[in-house]
Amino acid sequence: MNTEIREEIFKQAKKWVLEAGETIRTKINEPYEIDVKSNANDLVTTLDKDTEFFFATNIKSVYPDHHLLSEEGYGEDLTTLDGTVWIIDPIDGTMNFVHQKKHFAISIGIYQDGIGEIGLIYDVMADVLYHAKKNEGAYKNNAKLAPLNQNLKFEEVIFGLNHFWLCENRLVDEHSMQKFVKKIRGARTYGSAALELAYVAEGIMDGYLSMSLSAWDVAAGIVIVNEVGGITSNIDGEQINMLKKNSILTCNAAIQRNIIDNYLIKKRK
Amino acid sequence: MNTEIREEIFKQAKKWVLEAGETIRTKINEPYEIDVKSNANDLVTTLDKDTEFFFATNIKSVYPDHHLLSEEGYGEDLTTLDGTVWIIDPIDGTMNFVHQKKHFAISIGIYQDGIGEIGLIYDVMADVLYHAKKNEGAYKNNAKLAPLNQNLKFEEVIFGLNHFWLCENRLVDEHSMQKFVKKIRGARTYGSAALELAYVAEGIMDGYLSMSLSAWDVAAGIVIVNEVGGITSNIDGEQINMLKKNSILTCNAAIQRNIIDNYLIKKRK
Repeated sequence: MNTEIREEIFKQAKKWVLEAGETIRTKINEPYEIDVKSNANDLVTTLDKDTEFFFATNIKSVYPDHHLLSEEGYGEDLTTLDGTVWIIDPIDGTMNFVHQKKHFAISIGIYQDGIGEIGLIYDVMADVLYHAKKNEGAYKNNAKLAPLNQNLKFEEVIFGLNHFWLCENRLVDEHSMQKFVKKIRGARTYGSAALELAYVAEGIMDGYLSMSLSAWDVAAGIVIVNEVGGITSNIDGEQINMLKKNSILTCNAAIQRNIIDNYLIKKRK
Repeated sequence: MNTEIREEIFKQAKKWVLEAGETIRTKINEPYEIDVKSNANDLVTTLDKDTEFFFATNIKSVYPDHHLLSEEGYGEDLTTLDGTVWIIDPIDGTMNFVHQKKHFAISIGIYQDGIGEIGLIYDVMADVLYHAKKNEGAYKNNAKLAPLNQNLKFEEVIFGLNHFWLCENRLVDEHSMQKFVKKIRGARTYGSAALELAYVAEGIMDGYLSMSLSAWDVAAGIVIVNEVGGITSNIDGEQINMLKKNSILTCNAAIQRNIIDNYLIKKRK
């Protein structure tokens, strides 16, 4: 994607994100319906669907040849990432949305032939927009974010991860993960993958680990973290496949290596 | 403590908290020294000490007969809670302070003969003051906080707790705690006990559990949560002893009972 086209699409996407956020802020205190999707941990609200519909119709209208990969049903069933693909989570952190009425985000990653070109993560209630364009740096509102500290000691790390990593699970040895949280300085859990990736880019956490996320949870964050020198892989150190669910590990390269080699011990099948 | 005296002390305490917060906001981007106290997880900054000194000298000057229980060395070595005791953590969430430059709080509980009369928790960078006076309700800035939902289903609960509860430890059976986090809707970790108690009062979390906290971590929060119908005990369901370290469980009475009976299984010594 050339710089001019990227800039034009970025401006359009930013305008829509801010507009959608404004709508959400207005409506958040009105009554809304809550469906139960696959389980009680996975709530989805009317606003979630409405927000995705807003993006889907706008994208279809202005960029009829672009594709949409998204959570709530207005996207396509893509089998490739060819062309320009908007990867959207209209409300990331639904549980926070329902329970806290804050600490959720609109997350939009725009990819060209599988390459992340634009990332936007909008903390709606705080009115804070994290954004990045490929090779042009990452920003929190208008402030450029500093590069990640590549020489951080492991003992100084604050890491974002869900408590389930420490419970018996089929993926990795929980005892090794328990050693991990005892080894690092601190663990945090904020309940929104998009915001937690933005926090890594901002440097208020040094990394983020999640078991099973969809493309729309991470597409924007990967672009933003990448612009401050962070890398994202699955827990085997492999590149994320945007067409399926992935485990996610985001941090600097040295920390990634240490975690994969010493703490993410896979269970034998 | 009678209502007039409480009101007068509250106003004075509130004035000092806001003034101390203003100073911290001004100084937070200046360089500051970091000592390492008992371990790398327990950082203490110059600002932490300066803030406590500010309260200690002001209290001594205006209320020479009041006592001070606090973290950084300007308090007294109290053996009773007789009289009026200010229980102060100048900066709760030191790791957040150092690492994030936000998400920390000034916490002040004021107790009369062991009874919590006033609680103030000031989220310094967000400029949000949670406060309560005994029998007069709890507030977030000027907004009165609603009573806790006493009929919340266990499966709908969002609970704040440290990841260490799920690791092998000497206190409780980690497998039962792992069942707990799988049973509830979600777990969060924000890294400041004072703020996490304030969040319970605000209703953005439904409870908070911590292994070993000092009086200054919880004195304010207990008063504030109490005013919205929450209760605080140690993990045996016993009252908190402000003169020593305690485990802390804060939530509504039904959830407290369920957690103590079914999940906080003590290890045999």
